[in-house]
Amino acid sequence: MTLQRGRFIALEGGEGVGKSTNLRFVTDWLEARGIPYVQTREPGGTPLAEELRELLLRKREEAVDPTAELLMIFAARAQHLARVIEPALARGEWVICDRFTDATYAYQGGGRELDRALIAQLEQTVQGDLRPDRVLLLDLDPDAGLQRAASTGAADRFESEQLAFFQRVRAAYLQRAGSAPERYAVIDAGRPLEEVQRRLGSELEKQISRARDPE
Amino acid sequence: MTLQRGRFIALEGGEGVGKSTNLRFVTDWLEARGIPYVQTREPGGTPLAEELRELLLRKREEAVDPTAELLMIFAARAQHLARVIEPALARGEWVICDRFTDATYAYQGGGRELDRALIAQLEQTVQGDLRPDRVLLLDLDPDAGLQRAASTGAADRFESEQLAFFQRVRAAYLQRAGSAPERYAVIDAGRPLEEVQRRLGSELEKQISRARDPE
Repeated sequence: MTLQRGRFIALEGGEGVGKSTNLRFVTDWLEARGIPYVQTREPGGTPLAEELRELLLRKREEAVDPTAELLMIFAARAQHLARVIEPALARGEWVICDRFTDATYAYQGGGRELDRALIAQLEQTVQGDLRPDRVLLLDLDPDAGLQRAASTGAADRFESEQLAFFQRVRAAYLQRAGSAPERYAVIDAGRPLEEVQRRLGSELEKQISRARDPE
Repeated sequence: MTLQRGRFIALEGGEGVGKSTNLRFVTDWLEARGIPYVQTREPGGTPLAEELRELLLRKREEAVDPTAELLMIFAARAQHLARVIEPALARGEWVICDRFTDATYAYQGGGRELDRALIAQLEQTVQGDLRPDRVLLLDLDPDAGLQRAASTGAADRFESEQLAFFQRVRAAYLQRAGSAPERYAVIDAGRPLEEVQRRLGSELEKQISRARDPE
């Protein structure tokens, strides 16, 4: 019997969509069913990648070149894939990742308006054919999201952007989801929490049946 | 009268070739002639790029993925170009850079045996058509170079590589120089210092005439 690869699930969304709370729901759900998983995040997930995260998020005097930012993100991703994600999937564990490459399309492609073709080229270089099996996109109007996020401490270099930036982020997320509905679940994060989590649970159920019965 | 762009000179070479001493010679030479210049280095040259340099050079438990390393180097380069090199050249100043993209072809392409096509793709993405006007390559057999370098303190993550790595680095440098002799001066760093520096001086003279009389 060959070991089955784990499922790779990314949780995505802008500021204040409730990612932390819903991540906890997802991992509790997996634990209750005895499914082995690794919970991780981007940028970050290894000591080196977390150091890159710190460089990326810290507010600084120096204006950061958008291409430099993009390359740092993919550097962290290459390290994360090699050291954490690929080994976990190969061991048959699920990987639950707080943001992945869709966030790059949303924040750097949408927010910073960087060329999507360049992002796609780096995605191919760093990931080869690896993509999340399912992206759970928590969607919320940035007006509401930023109000929720404002209450959670000092803003980092991204959180300090203006509303128009986050509107482009949201539009880019929705565009990605619309272009490949088989890989995305768009979840209205403005609905009551129990409704959001019922939806998350049903998405996870579907992943279990696919893990048992891969195409 | 339009302001003339400065000349962009990279000093390259493996371990122990005498880069520091000869860099000082180059900048003294420019100062004696009243030529405005910026002296800088890679990876590094801006606060963010220097932080990336520190992450790159520090020895760590975690194995560093070669693609992650390559992307960090080009991230630092994008920042360095945007914040330091391009503005200096545009102001008409010369840029004297301790290592540039040839070092990436040599260390990551030659040493780590990464795909040169990937390096070329990133070079194009980050630099567009910008290349050093002249690369001064200090060439030395790694056997001799490592002996010289060993006396200058604790080895960093690159300096800790084995002899075969540095032989591949040297071969890659020489191959680059051989493929575009109009852009490279290969200088035998095993010759007496005054001879090396006579050669450097004559290379700089040529750059002055080109700055006056660009093709």
